[in-house]
Amino acid sequence: MNKSVKLPPDRRIGVIGGGQLGKMLIEASRPWNVKYTVLENDLHCPASSVADKVMLGGLKDAEAIRKLALECDVLTFEIEHINSDALLEIEESGKTVIPSARALKTIQDKGIQKLFYREHAIPTADFVICDTPSNLSQVLQPFAGEKVVIKQRTGGYDGKGVDIVTKKDIESGVYISPGPCVVEHFHPEITEYSVIVAADRHGNVVTYPLIEMYFNPQSNLVEFLFSPAETTADLEADCREAAMRAVKYLQSPGLFAVELFVTEKSEVLVNEIAPRPHNSGHHTIEGSYTSQFEQLNRILLDLPLGNTEMVQPSAMINLVGAEGQSGPYKLKYTKELLAEPGVYVHLYNKTEIRPHRKMGHITVMAEGLQALLEKAGKVREWAVFE
Amino acid sequence: MNKSVKLPPDRRIGVIGGGQLGKMLIEASRPWNVKYTVLENDLHCPASSVADKVMLGGLKDAEAIRKLALECDVLTFEIEHINSDALLEIEESGKTVIPSARALKTIQDKGIQKLFYREHAIPTADFVICDTPSNLSQVLQPFAGEKVVIKQRTGGYDGKGVDIVTKKDIESGVYISPGPCVVEHFHPEITEYSVIVAADRHGNVVTYPLIEMYFNPQSNLVEFLFSPAETTADLEADCREAAMRAVKYLQSPGLFAVELFVTEKSEVLVNEIAPRPHNSGHHTIEGSYTSQFEQLNRILLDLPLGNTEMVQPSAMINLVGAEGQSGPYKLKYTKELLAEPGVYVHLYNKTEIRPHRKMGHITVMAEGLQALLEKAGKVREWAVFE
Repeated sequence: MNKSVKLPPDRRIGVIGGGQLGKMLIEASRPWNVKYTVLENDLHCPASSVADKVMLGGLKDAEAIRKLALECDVLTFEIEHINSDALLEIEESGKTVIPSARALKTIQDKGIQKLFYREHAIPTADFVICDTPSNLSQVLQPFAGEKVVIKQRTGGYDGKGVDIVTKKDIESGVYISPGPCVVEHFHPEITEYSVIVAADRHGNVVTYPLIEMYFNPQSNLVEFLFSPAETTADLEADCREAAMRAVKYLQSPGLFAVELFVTEKSEVLVNEIAPRPHNSGHHTIEGSYTSQFEQLNRILLDLPLGNTEMVQPSAMINLVGAEGQSGPYKLKYTKELLAEPGVYVHLYNKTEIRPHRKMGHITVMAEGLQALLEKAGKVREWAVFE
Repeated sequence: MNKSVKLPPDRRIGVIGGGQLGKMLIEASRPWNVKYTVLENDLHCPASSVADKVMLGGLKDAEAIRKLALECDVLTFEIEHINSDALLEIEESGKTVIPSARALKTIQDKGIQKLFYREHAIPTADFVICDTPSNLSQVLQPFAGEKVVIKQRTGGYDGKGVDIVTKKDIESGVYISPGPCVVEHFHPEITEYSVIVAADRHGNVVTYPLIEMYFNPQSNLVEFLFSPAETTADLEADCREAAMRAVKYLQSPGLFAVELFVTEKSEVLVNEIAPRPHNSGHHTIEGSYTSQFEQLNRILLDLPLGNTEMVQPSAMINLVGAEGQSGPYKLKYTKELLAEPGVYVHLYNKTEIRPHRKMGHITVMAEGLQALLEKAGKVREWAVFE
């Protein structure tokens, strides 16, 4: 790609996947008039309302990915479960793929991802890889405590593919892993954080302020988060440092979310990396000078990285389908939400609601953290569909 | 329209005109997935890249406007020079038109607009209407000073259709008005301001902070502006009050920009009203909790008015074609602009540059007014195309 990209960019970007992350990536590019083609197996996917073109095809279909590459100057993806071999081949042919196919391959398989952390001395929960599920009970010995975490090596997302189980259930055969997995030490008292990290093509890497996350115990989806986190400057620095190191070793440009655990002993552990914009960074659309989506556009177009500071402390609340909800949907408290200052509603253009389906999110801004948490508490009550 | 609009809105909005104002109106609606059809006589108009549909037709073509109305739930316009009779007829048939056709008719004709100010005791420069250009020299008697302002009653835009001329040139026949006009007292020492005013369908009217504007003396286009204005709280209150009164008397929902003169004696005069989002409100996209474009979406969808406060002091610099520029174009200082924190580049998706053509704008944000003006001063040097 030409080094001196100027606006308007005169480039077409191809995105593998047409979900909400693709939608918001394209929305962020509209003031620059970037051309976007998305590859998705549904012409009515969320990104279809904003993409310049939707190419119909499967995300694992090498032929479809090659076809997408042919008509685009740069390729990216908004989901990890894609054909990374096809991506590697396209990259080797000279096309710009961001993040790199190699980085995706490291992340796609949670076993390789954990070995990558170990290799680079990036702090992470102790683990053992178990490729033969029937042998699971034989690898439990190193783990203290009653429970362990079982992560499927491939195919998991949004908390699916991760189980917290007792050793007893494994030993008695009540729990059987559905496939090759990583067995991890279970830290019962952790706080979960995320750091958004942006890496350009020239080795510059920047981090966003620390994000404090709360999960729904049933669905294991992020339910609520805010940034900056309510913690010490030291811990914030440790987390941003760990996240930055993890991304630097990937040696790939891109926009990454690094999920972290902080244990009761203030130990920082890298849980996993998402090589794309992430649910934990949605508050940056209004809350940061440069949103995670604008930042990725800058990286894809080889433009300078943007300022990662926050304009104001911000919170994010996911809008998720409740148990039993399906079909058409409306927000129950539209007027209450829109009458509240500093509240922004994003809907993902999904055709139908379903239980635990991410339908949208709400950003809340306020001048101080205390005011933010109070306002967000009120707004959470309104984050429901009818 | 149903009183209880909820998100997602399930409404199609029709916009007469597909320029940059339509483009940014639609961009602001994307998180809510509003459906938009624009009527424009060019399929490659700025809004075409974001509209759900472009309907090809003239803005004064009654038949085209009727066709647009048929497929939309609400009609609006992003330019005044449209067929207001067709709009009135559509409104009378029961379709929601915002702003009302009546308000548009008051504004379209600068003679009627000035009489409207007089009727409602809204302060404005002294004037006389002159419908017979050959009689122009006979109506100059009431005006003190050497010069007067001649405004064409219809058809003017962006400073076109407004002349500042000496009485001598009129009396000697050197200046001949091309059509029926308003003759206005010329105030030589004025500061120009704007107030964005939002009116919902239920009589609620809110104003944005005062905007201080600087014009290019050649093109008469806004070149640079910032908000909040550098003035006294009293003058700010007087301006917002005058702007609000002017809009209240229009008795129409909509998003309006009220341009004001403040004379050397701190007298506030309403210059004119634009019944749509306005160049003087572009800084609200990043600088305000609710941008002028989101605000108009709220009004069109009958949702509550949003907070008009500023997140941070903001400036706006127009990106305009220079003398002699035509054809393809690139920003000359893309990297410098994007490396500067708190700077946002908007390009309008115009196919070619032309002298004095508005090609885009830049928003600059900073934590204080002094820092803002310094940063904006630097950024203005980079606001050029190659």
